[in-house]
Amino acid sequence: MMNGKIFDLEAVAYDEETGELVLLDQTLLPNETKFLRLKTQKSIWEAIFLLQVRGAPAIGIAAAYGIYLAVKDSVAGSFEKFSEEFVAAKEYLNSARPTAVNLSWALNRMQECMELHKEKSIAEIKNVLLKEANDIKEEDIWVCKTIGEFGLSLLEPNIGILTHCNAGTLATGKYGTALSPIYIGNEQGYNFKVFADETRPLLQGARLTAYELYHAGVDVTLICDNMASIVMKKGWIQAVFVGCDRVAANGDTANKIGTSGVAILAKRYGIPFYVCAPTSTIDLNCETGEDIHIEERNPLEVTTQWYEKPMALEGVKVFNPSFDVTDHDLITAIITEYGIAKAPYDQSLKEIFSKKTKKS
Amino acid sequence: MMNGKIFDLEAVAYDEETGELVLLDQTLLPNETKFLRLKTQKSIWEAIFLLQVRGAPAIGIAAAYGIYLAVKDSVAGSFEKFSEEFVAAKEYLNSARPTAVNLSWALNRMQECMELHKEKSIAEIKNVLLKEANDIKEEDIWVCKTIGEFGLSLLEPNIGILTHCNAGTLATGKYGTALSPIYIGNEQGYNFKVFADETRPLLQGARLTAYELYHAGVDVTLICDNMASIVMKKGWIQAVFVGCDRVAANGDTANKIGTSGVAILAKRYGIPFYVCAPTSTIDLNCETGEDIHIEERNPLEVTTQWYEKPMALEGVKVFNPSFDVTDHDLITAIITEYGIAKAPYDQSLKEIFSKKTKKS
Repeated sequence: MMNGKIFDLEAVAYDEETGELVLLDQTLLPNETKFLRLKTQKSIWEAIFLLQVRGAPAIGIAAAYGIYLAVKDSVAGSFEKFSEEFVAAKEYLNSARPTAVNLSWALNRMQECMELHKEKSIAEIKNVLLKEANDIKEEDIWVCKTIGEFGLSLLEPNIGILTHCNAGTLATGKYGTALSPIYIGNEQGYNFKVFADETRPLLQGARLTAYELYHAGVDVTLICDNMASIVMKKGWIQAVFVGCDRVAANGDTANKIGTSGVAILAKRYGIPFYVCAPTSTIDLNCETGEDIHIEERNPLEVTTQWYEKPMALEGVKVFNPSFDVTDHDLITAIITEYGIAKAPYDQSLKEIFSKKTKKS
Repeated sequence: MMNGKIFDLEAVAYDEETGELVLLDQTLLPNETKFLRLKTQKSIWEAIFLLQVRGAPAIGIAAAYGIYLAVKDSVAGSFEKFSEEFVAAKEYLNSARPTAVNLSWALNRMQECMELHKEKSIAEIKNVLLKEANDIKEEDIWVCKTIGEFGLSLLEPNIGILTHCNAGTLATGKYGTALSPIYIGNEQGYNFKVFADETRPLLQGARLTAYELYHAGVDVTLICDNMASIVMKKGWIQAVFVGCDRVAANGDTANKIGTSGVAILAKRYGIPFYVCAPTSTIDLNCETGEDIHIEERNPLEVTTQWYEKPMALEGVKVFNPSFDVTDHDLITAIITEYGIAKAPYDQSLKEIFSKKTKKS
């Protein structure tokens, strides 16, 4: 099964020959590698709802193909009728995870595309929609790859890298964000030694990151979150790469719970701490990390999930925040698809956006 | 079941009426509170071997009562015969966990006691041995209680306290070490809010610490190890208390894996970090933390133990160190039964030992 090709692990792909959406079923990882082949909007709704596809970019791509598949066989005779069917399917798919920003973003973009081409024939509109879904995926791959190249420019071969949670190929069109420098370096013989935090309570590091890196032939070692300090102290880590959920204008970064702790350890040990952030996650309207709301999740994720028996006495209180905020002073650089931002971030992140505006 | 009395949770007790060793079966925690009543050396050997009793002091106490019970019904007619039986039982009990220092320490102390009284009758020697076992337990309780009182002298009421792993009443005669200031404060109405790191991979914080604090009526909240940073940042923590396995002459401290990370976070957030260390764990012959060997444990503890299914792909490498070393510059104070040591530790720890020598 291990063959050194991350392509085999594509989280979301469209099979043009069979007209099927092909999803790697992430609920079965790491024990089983199984691809779902989906044609109906109901099956795609279920895949999103059941988290068989996860990771913001991957969900967006799946939704784009999903809405295309939902209207692909429409027999509507007019744009109005076709548009009606499209909107119904869009609302249905969006209901699978109403709070997933990338899901509604991708569906809205597909709708705008449809409306932009309303003068065309239904058959032509269908083709344009497929192209748009392909574009969404290709753009995501470009973003990831470019982040990886910028990230790699900061690294020497044969170093140790620590990562937290999963910001990898499984969450994106390809490469991931935090793992992209590792994959691109791996293709070029950089021979990194990667340490993956298991990332309690949902174990994305153990189940997903270690899985995909191992699959790609990367030298990966799994550790518990509380072992990051000892591996850094041993001198095994020369860089930390993490993804992010949201970056504020001053560089404060919300990411999976535990990220801020890793950043504090890295500072103590003099190790650079890099955040990989597609510009879509940078919110210049959000002034600082204090403006980022941190969702709390079900206590059972900590005490019961995955286990044969509960691991805490019933009645014991649990605090289970999904994210934390890493202060910008702990971040060595924020790596985007338009370049590398360094402190002071309130300035450098604005410059990144001006580059983005020029290019687009 | 919750009644605010930690006495109910005595890990090791001797029932004089029935002549039974009473052990709280810690392998069933946190789901079941069951006491074993043991009389034979075989059943006590098994309890130690199966980790039904754990924690260095608790094992020592169990072994002391165990060797007493092993020879209590001896019909030996001479000291030589009695001593022979004693040594056989001692070797047998010691084989349950040959690397547990407190096990052999307690058994050796019992043997020395026997030999000191060799001129007495067998019946008298048996009585002296029971008294010695009781003394071992009472001395441990004195050590724990005294550490708790010194620790409490550093604290204000109503504060938040974070702890890592289990250094509680379950591991000792009573009170524990790191949890002792909490229990003693609790008895005096200090109303602490305690946060317990779950402590991967073996989850002693979830299974044991949260259990025993909740049982004693302490306000305890369970968190994953990687949530220590966010609870500190929120201002919920005013002190950290941890136990230790070994303290070097310069104050470097080996304790459960993850402790050094907690200390680094505490430093970042300006929170005092206290190590509770019976003088028996302070090794002035060990110069620095670099001289402390860190044992690596079975990778399956990380990937498989407790889980319904493996949480990492087979073949993925795992690093699973049992301890880490916290540098002395991160430690605000080391609290012993002979007083509180502060930096410079190479001086203050020696002073602690000179107080100990004077008192004993």
